[in-house]
Amino acid sequence: MNAECIGLVCRDCGTKIAESEFSLTCPSCGAPMRVEFAAGALRKALQDGMPPYDDRSYLYQWRSILPLSDESLIDRVSLGETETPLLRSHRYGRKRGISDLYFKLEQGPTLSLKDRGTALCVLKALEQGSETVCLSSSGNNAASISAYGSRAGLRPVVFVQKHVSAAKISKSLVYGGNVIRIDGDMAAASRLCGEMVRKKGWYQCGGPNPYRVAGKRTFAYGIVQQLGRAPDTVLIPCGGGAGMVAAFDGFSEMLEAGLIDRMPRLVGVQLAACNPTATAFHAGKDVVTPVEKKPSLSDAIMNNNPYWGKYCLQAVRATGGTMLSVTDEEFIRAIRELGREEGIFTEPAGAVSAAALTRLLDAPGFEQPGLTVCNLTGHGLNAPQVATGDEEYPGLVEATSAAVDKYLQEQAVSGAGRLRSAL
Amino acid sequence: MNAECIGLVCRDCGTKIAESEFSLTCPSCGAPMRVEFAAGALRKALQDGMPPYDDRSYLYQWRSILPLSDESLIDRVSLGETETPLLRSHRYGRKRGISDLYFKLEQGPTLSLKDRGTALCVLKALEQGSETVCLSSSGNNAASISAYGSRAGLRPVVFVQKHVSAAKISKSLVYGGNVIRIDGDMAAASRLCGEMVRKKGWYQCGGPNPYRVAGKRTFAYGIVQQLGRAPDTVLIPCGGGAGMVAAFDGFSEMLEAGLIDRMPRLVGVQLAACNPTATAFHAGKDVVTPVEKKPSLSDAIMNNNPYWGKYCLQAVRATGGTMLSVTDEEFIRAIRELGREEGIFTEPAGAVSAAALTRLLDAPGFEQPGLTVCNLTGHGLNAPQVATGDEEYPGLVEATSAAVDKYLQEQAVSGAGRLRSAL
Repeated sequence: MNAECIGLVCRDCGTKIAESEFSLTCPSCGAPMRVEFAAGALRKALQDGMPPYDDRSYLYQWRSILPLSDESLIDRVSLGETETPLLRSHRYGRKRGISDLYFKLEQGPTLSLKDRGTALCVLKALEQGSETVCLSSSGNNAASISAYGSRAGLRPVVFVQKHVSAAKISKSLVYGGNVIRIDGDMAAASRLCGEMVRKKGWYQCGGPNPYRVAGKRTFAYGIVQQLGRAPDTVLIPCGGGAGMVAAFDGFSEMLEAGLIDRMPRLVGVQLAACNPTATAFHAGKDVVTPVEKKPSLSDAIMNNNPYWGKYCLQAVRATGGTMLSVTDEEFIRAIRELGREEGIFTEPAGAVSAAALTRLLDAPGFEQPGLTVCNLTGHGLNAPQVATGDEEYPGLVEATSAAVDKYLQEQAVSGAGRLRSAL
Repeated sequence: MNAECIGLVCRDCGTKIAESEFSLTCPSCGAPMRVEFAAGALRKALQDGMPPYDDRSYLYQWRSILPLSDESLIDRVSLGETETPLLRSHRYGRKRGISDLYFKLEQGPTLSLKDRGTALCVLKALEQGSETVCLSSSGNNAASISAYGSRAGLRPVVFVQKHVSAAKISKSLVYGGNVIRIDGDMAAASRLCGEMVRKKGWYQCGGPNPYRVAGKRTFAYGIVQQLGRAPDTVLIPCGGGAGMVAAFDGFSEMLEAGLIDRMPRLVGVQLAACNPTATAFHAGKDVVTPVEKKPSLSDAIMNNNPYWGKYCLQAVRATGGTMLSVTDEEFIRAIRELGREEGIFTEPAGAVSAAALTRLLDAPGFEQPGLTVCNLTGHGLNAPQVATGDEEYPGLVEATSAAVDKYLQEQAVSGAGRLRSAL
């Protein structure tokens, strides 16, 4: 039986509204909302254990715990998203002293983690009868909403800032997104997006939308289904922080429902170039103060004023987790080592969680992290230029077997060195 | 029960050898080999119907019909490849007069169709105790073998031609491939690869390897499992032609085993810029004569001397299919229309099958193609630069709702025209 969704509840003041009164944020205090289910409903929905894998869509697999009022809409939205693989590490973990390491390859049809939340948001837009779905983003989220919006027959509109690169938005254009490049920065793009939502009734799929977090929380359910237990430690890249909050929601619900016997420790990872949440965590603050961004080769999780910052801090602290920061050099090295040691190509935003493993072992209380899951948030082709440098273009080899032998011997000696010197 | 593999049989002269005597081509006549199962073994293996979806790997799902002597090797090889989605078309087919159209999103962990054959080849390399896996390729196949080779702890070596672009090989480099850029063209790279296989005992994963086709044939099984029946028509992009031969093998086996009641018509699609197999088909030839390549924006299926050409012709003719050719303009348009109408971003090599639908309806006997499947062979990010042009970079929009309205109205009128003029 599907869990009955009884509405939205404010994460701060507890104000409750019905789903039909949908509001992006709390009508009383402006804080973000959480999708609420009837007491005991999730436990009942899962009383026979985890729902089996569904080869059509994870929206089918997890429908008993998702706020869906019309399952027939799934086919209109679905792009074939299925529960993402959980791969056991063969070498990367062992080399770094973590014997029980898994990678969650969190990439949907548009090759990033965004699809999990997007699929549910677009479905809710259909339920509400909206004809336009929108958000402000120039990266993975823009591509995701463009694809799912087009698939559902809605008009996807994405707001981007003035100086966005052509490469960054081309994926959204191909997916049929209407890209509005506004005369202003990202904050201005967000404001204008919000204005269109209020004035035109467009459906906001980004930022505070509580269904995005409700969709993303199946990430935690997927891990528990695949492991048959809760992990001990989960490393989650934190930009805006929605992924951390969603993971906390999911694991908390499973604990409450008796599906797991304790919470994993949730570890947030940020780039050293922009780590407001990590800074607040280590300063013992309850809220996150905006920071100045420093230059970085990645812009995907460079969020200097994270919307979910406060709730992200709560999630990390409540589970006995921690916040880590990694440098550009560390995440680039992680991308290359994941490739060589595991055959995995991940984007910078995902590589930070793998890069943070070395630092994790140095964090107080994490000498033995136990069964650990790294969230790799998207495929490396989302940002291919970051991973390799021109200096790696291979030299010409004479077409003889002797020359090949010699080249490979040289490579074995100098290859790793060449990569290091490029950093 | 798993079907017993009894060895390899020559596709031309019928010479049989045991798996342990592995030879890439027939020791008697040099023709390609086919993996052979004991009489009735496939029927028996599938007597209870199709094996259920497996969320770890399609190597597990299809193990009863794959030539595996040691299933425990699957975990060493697997990158989380699962049966690829079969998406029903919402708009693209209907707009072109095909009411019952499906897209097979044939992209594995490295985002292309190559993973299906690669996964089995690398597993067989482990079985044989090889330490190096190799092939000559600079595109999807090179990336695939690099990833699976690294995952399995083997040394992946890919041979590329002198003038390969840095962008083309960067994916292989990240996946840990040893890229040998030889002083010569693609044919020279292939020859040198073959020489290393003979001299050093490296495991050849490309070209004639019969396990590549044996792995790829699960593509056909996947479609039948997902549809619950055989499709009427399947469109398959043809470069070297292995995909067509593998599909024919798979559907033929299912017919023989009583899982389907007739063969689908198999339709091969090539680029007009390089269509030796289509040319031979329409000239009534039994073999494919090499052609001169003309310029094209895609190089992925530009194979002017296709290894499987003769067998590809046999497969198409035996099923009452046909061969079609599409122009660059047609496949670029297909990429964009798939994006806008379905939310799918596919690479040029895959888009040709969707582009060919319009021509299909004009082909004699295909006015009513029935339930049709297009094979979309990989994600668009494998060749992102092909799909969008600089002229599409959006103009600046004033940060007001009125300006947004105006911009979207203009777009709705001129958008499609802008794309057309760019072609």
